[in-house]
Amino acid sequence: MSSTPRSESPDNSFEVLVSQSVGTEPLGSLADLLPVLARDLADIDWRLQRILGARYATLTEAASYACSTGGKRVRPLLIAAYFRALGASSVEKIHALAGAFQLIHTASLVHDDVIDHAEARRGRPSMPRAYGLPLAIVTGDYLFVRAFELAAEYPPSIILRCGEACADLVEGEVIQEEGRFDLSTGKDHYFRVVERKTGAIVAAGLASATEIAGADPEVVEAAATYGRSVGIAFQIRDDLLDIFGDPDLMGKPLYSDFREGNPTLPSLETYARLDGRRQTEFERLFQLRRKHARHLLRLHELAEEAGAEAIVAEQARWWADKAVRSLSVLPPGPYRTLLERLARGQAERRY
Amino acid sequence: MSSTPRSESPDNSFEVLVSQSVGTEPLGSLADLLPVLARDLADIDWRLQRILGARYATLTEAASYACSTGGKRVRPLLIAAYFRALGASSVEKIHALAGAFQLIHTASLVHDDVIDHAEARRGRPSMPRAYGLPLAIVTGDYLFVRAFELAAEYPPSIILRCGEACADLVEGEVIQEEGRFDLSTGKDHYFRVVERKTGAIVAAGLASATEIAGADPEVVEAAATYGRSVGIAFQIRDDLLDIFGDPDLMGKPLYSDFREGNPTLPSLETYARLDGRRQTEFERLFQLRRKHARHLLRLHELAEEAGAEAIVAEQARWWADKAVRSLSVLPPGPYRTLLERLARGQAERRY
Repeated sequence: MSSTPRSESPDNSFEVLVSQSVGTEPLGSLADLLPVLARDLADIDWRLQRILGARYATLTEAASYACSTGGKRVRPLLIAAYFRALGASSVEKIHALAGAFQLIHTASLVHDDVIDHAEARRGRPSMPRAYGLPLAIVTGDYLFVRAFELAAEYPPSIILRCGEACADLVEGEVIQEEGRFDLSTGKDHYFRVVERKTGAIVAAGLASATEIAGADPEVVEAAATYGRSVGIAFQIRDDLLDIFGDPDLMGKPLYSDFREGNPTLPSLETYARLDGRRQTEFERLFQLRRKHARHLLRLHELAEEAGAEAIVAEQARWWADKAVRSLSVLPPGPYRTLLERLARGQAERRY
Repeated sequence: MSSTPRSESPDNSFEVLVSQSVGTEPLGSLADLLPVLARDLADIDWRLQRILGARYATLTEAASYACSTGGKRVRPLLIAAYFRALGASSVEKIHALAGAFQLIHTASLVHDDVIDHAEARRGRPSMPRAYGLPLAIVTGDYLFVRAFELAAEYPPSIILRCGEACADLVEGEVIQEEGRFDLSTGKDHYFRVVERKTGAIVAAGLASATEIAGADPEVVEAAATYGRSVGIAFQIRDDLLDIFGDPDLMGKPLYSDFREGNPTLPSLETYARLDGRRQTEFERLFQLRRKHARHLLRLHELAEEAGAEAIVAEQARWWADKAVRSLSVLPPGPYRTLLERLARGQAERRY
């Protein structure tokens, strides 16, 4: 169980992660926490690198590639910060846990990229693009399997939390598939997808960490609420950036949800707000199975005319507020304040 | 942990399984064991059906479909028979284990069918054919996840055995991918693939059951040898039947390995045994990325001329013999005799 932490983070992405996650206001004295958390994340990375080693070099390489392009490490950051907010002076006990949740998330991104025919992720070719479909599928499986090996360090209740979160994740994908190219699904459908695909896994990660810390059930419950709400805020913002973001900052092209026909919140709000003729036009274009650049740009234009950006941004903020309120069970202190910033940061991030 | 066994097997496939698995010689007094094992398998099925239930009906349905077409349940049968051969009067302790290994196997078949563009399995459309690629991918993930939830009932050492077997399985798939359309890979490559894709998972299932029974380490090791050898015998026979079997009996078309360019043992033996001109022809046809019916039939003809069927059948028998020898650590008795029959049956089966 004991790990030999590496002396430094494998790359400078911690700074990127922080600048993405805490918003634009100055950090003040909270900046003192960053070296501690950077070290925590480096330790978690190290644990991951050790478990990803296969006897067969191609697989190790593919798994490492998936981890380098998959996910921003928001989940391990939230888990480490929450664990420290509970008063822990070391996060060694949750290295494997944070690693497991990061792997589950990465595995799901790899399989999502297969399903969505994604070209790029974080500025590099997506897994299926870089390694082909067969290797992308089995590398995703490999990451799931290694995640459960990490989870095997913990009591059955924690393993079951991981399992249920994965089942939610899969369920979210199935529900999403059923709603493709269909704007009549409505917001209930959208939130069912988002809660399962993003909320459940962050909730389970934080609830598990809190349980491992030996906290009371009400704190475990509050941690789950924080995780679920931050996850949903993150996803709403993600869906917004897919239309209104800066593709150079994000490292992937815009409009993937338009192309794949995902009725995300910006599209649903646009559809609900447009008048008759433009509403029909929006729906007709949205339903096209193959969209050309001019269709995508027109969809963007209509979303802009409907004022979707501001409305959807406000909803991401609503979930961030909910996350912040759930923190009242924690003792006041710098880590709790940082968790507030992290929640609000998800609803404001530019990439 | 306790289950309410159903009063009967969900279908008559136990009889099919037995007739496939024990060869053509009469069973004699061993037939008395069959009702006991049929009940064990029905209990394991029942445990599986309970864990596969998702909140979302489409997913439950897709998972059930995968289980109904995926795998012949040889693995749970071997696990139950081995556990009883160790002297257990009830197999309740390994219901979840046998279920987990059956799910892992099924998950891997689903993802294999995506990768290999398989049309059919056990006489019904394959998962990707029946449900589409996205649902096939996530249903495979779902089956892996539920397998680990079942494994969570056991100590970490068992969970790690499951995990390592899955990692082997994935590694086998990666090695297989790298050898496609290449007959120069040779038998070492073939056995590396087969040991990982089929041997490791059966070995891990039996070793786990033996460990749960509290057996000595040498018995655990012997159980792993039995499982690995039976698995390899099974796979060699499978690869033989893909060329020389009866497609109506098997419920799937012939020549999938020719089509996908898998250099299996029958192709390697054919290639090694043909003379110059016919060897070149075999290689040229084998390497075609798209093969027409006449190419497939000519490959079959050349394999027949090379006498590959008898040579490969003999190698399957060699592995069955190895499995039988490993049973000497068990107390003599009807279950041990049945395990011998089950090993030899894998090397003789017609479908």
